[in-house]
Amino acid sequence: MKVKTDNYTIYLQHWDEVGDWISAQSYSHHFILVDENTRKHCLPVLDQYWKDLKYTLIAIPSGEENKILSTAKYVWDQLLTFGADRHSLLINLGGGVIGDLGGFCASTYMRGIDFIQIPTTLLSMTDASIGGKLGIDFQGFKNMIGLFTDPKCILIDSVFLDSLPFGELRSGFAENLKHGLIADKNFWEEIKDLNLQSKIDWNPIIQRSVEIKKDVVSKDPFEQGLRKILNFGHTIGHAIESFHLKAGATILHGEAIAVGMYCEAYLSREVGLLENETFHDLIQDLLEIYPIVDHSIWDVDQLIAMMSKDKKNRDQKIMFSLIENVGHCVFNKEMTKENILEALQYYQLNEISTLS
Amino acid sequence: MKVKTDNYTIYLQHWDEVGDWISAQSYSHHFILVDENTRKHCLPVLDQYWKDLKYTLIAIPSGEENKILSTAKYVWDQLLTFGADRHSLLINLGGGVIGDLGGFCASTYMRGIDFIQIPTTLLSMTDASIGGKLGIDFQGFKNMIGLFTDPKCILIDSVFLDSLPFGELRSGFAENLKHGLIADKNFWEEIKDLNLQSKIDWNPIIQRSVEIKKDVVSKDPFEQGLRKILNFGHTIGHAIESFHLKAGATILHGEAIAVGMYCEAYLSREVGLLENETFHDLIQDLLEIYPIVDHSIWDVDQLIAMMSKDKKNRDQKIMFSLIENVGHCVFNKEMTKENILEALQYYQLNEISTLS
Repeated sequence: MKVKTDNYTIYLQHWDEVGDWISAQSYSHHFILVDENTRKHCLPVLDQYWKDLKYTLIAIPSGEENKILSTAKYVWDQLLTFGADRHSLLINLGGGVIGDLGGFCASTYMRGIDFIQIPTTLLSMTDASIGGKLGIDFQGFKNMIGLFTDPKCILIDSVFLDSLPFGELRSGFAENLKHGLIADKNFWEEIKDLNLQSKIDWNPIIQRSVEIKKDVVSKDPFEQGLRKILNFGHTIGHAIESFHLKAGATILHGEAIAVGMYCEAYLSREVGLLENETFHDLIQDLLEIYPIVDHSIWDVDQLIAMMSKDKKNRDQKIMFSLIENVGHCVFNKEMTKENILEALQYYQLNEISTLS
Repeated sequence: MKVKTDNYTIYLQHWDEVGDWISAQSYSHHFILVDENTRKHCLPVLDQYWKDLKYTLIAIPSGEENKILSTAKYVWDQLLTFGADRHSLLINLGGGVIGDLGGFCASTYMRGIDFIQIPTTLLSMTDASIGGKLGIDFQGFKNMIGLFTDPKCILIDSVFLDSLPFGELRSGFAENLKHGLIADKNFWEEIKDLNLQSKIDWNPIIQRSVEIKKDVVSKDPFEQGLRKILNFGHTIGHAIESFHLKAGATILHGEAIAVGMYCEAYLSREVGLLENETFHDLIQDLLEIYPIVDHSIWDVDQLIAMMSKDKKNRDQKIMFSLIENVGHCVFNKEMTKENILEALQYYQLNEISTLS
């Protein structure tokens, strides 16, 4: 299966075709960026499919806390040291950190070399690798430094999910759910009750998510308008994620986004976009999948201050993308600090999960 | 006078029109990037024309040695601290360092905010500000990290040249000369004997240079082919510039490019593109303008090693753009290390100038 965008193709499991394409380009060097997990679990798969590929490995430590300027500097330095020229290729084999940071480094090294994304987590397969958003965190703010550049192609193989920890799988699943909530009610209904602990055929789920995201992005590549709907759950979610990161109580992206979707569904109801019953069903569905995060550490004023640095804002106003029923989403909705506070407090009424 | 490119306009002295355009955009914040020199000499001019413009000033130290990642980090940090959002504008008021680094920071801050270039040196008016090349030096290599992004507009006013030190003027003039050598024999003839110490009407010179550069760039914005002709003098010139920078004996860009044009004219003759007599006239003209740099400190092997990291190379081969008579230029010409060594040694036959 392939999904074509204007500028590149997303291949599902076509290792041979992508391998042949790489050979045909006659790159002067191939580099593969990994972290310690993808080096162990994913690189052997790549090696098996692409037996003849010669490459230089660049390894960085895993984790969002390493998606920072000093790591980017290390990658640029390795590219330079091992003689990368403009006709080199960087293959990013990993999750969102590898894809975002590797893509950022590639697209700024010598003003841009080619790169390919091979996402290895559900999150990056369904979300991060598509849409050309690249970047690093800066001063504790997510993706503050970055740019838009498309990869040469994306190669997705759900085989990598077999080695993915359950928490990571559930984290990525938040983006599948989001795609349903903002754009496809049927998709939401189909997946919301899935038992993630059971054996799942991820291919159709990934494919549908990729199609939804691609459709939105192709209509608004630089996030002038419509693309903002992909940020449902992310205004509050990013602040939660950053706050927990700074507090040393890191939570996974999707766990934070689940909190964000919970609170932003609350805001959607607040402004009359979501009926009360639908809202309660929705948050119940979310709570059945995602444990309640440790909200006892929250400083709500600080959380709201962090939202005021969100990239979607204008003139210090905090702007939201909110759902209109299930399956539709509107953007550029300004909410007051009082509204947001109330939404956060509503979440805090839930008892903190001791299980994860 | 205006020069239009596909994506933006280069205004010569139209302060009112650009000022009106800025107002009409309703940016949420305006930032102006300066160094200590442009703050003193150029900002008062801007303040006089744009009396009502409210802005936050970001000041960085002048000089190529500050066109580095730590300075970029400082600019990003200042933007963040002073609340720059996606709808902010950065005005880069200065020479190549300000334009390249400021443009790089703007086009990566929150994945890109608008920026305007107001070049204040002859070099940046005729060369650096046009063509969308942005970036910083890295590990001693020029412009190793960067990207292509066009400014919203460029505003050129030769009034800034009145406060420019003579050495800087002569440095920038090397790019005017280069534009003549690669693309316009008449232009070369007109300007090569100018007395730079006298009062000169720079407007027609800047205009012609801007037109030449714009024509080349518009045909090949991402330097896939033709644009490489703008690199005449720069393969050797960049290595010389980097070498002197590392050695703590910094020379100006145009001084290094003059050496580069000298040596690459030698290579052009070597491969039969330039007649012997034309070659001798040409280097004589260059020597009358540019003092011989301190070549006694050169380590020619190291210089050649540095050229092998040039961004135009492929597969470690050192590629040159060479002139074919005066007024034409060809690109992708591979030269051997022996050829390059010979060209450098030919330059070293000149006695080092004690004057500058």
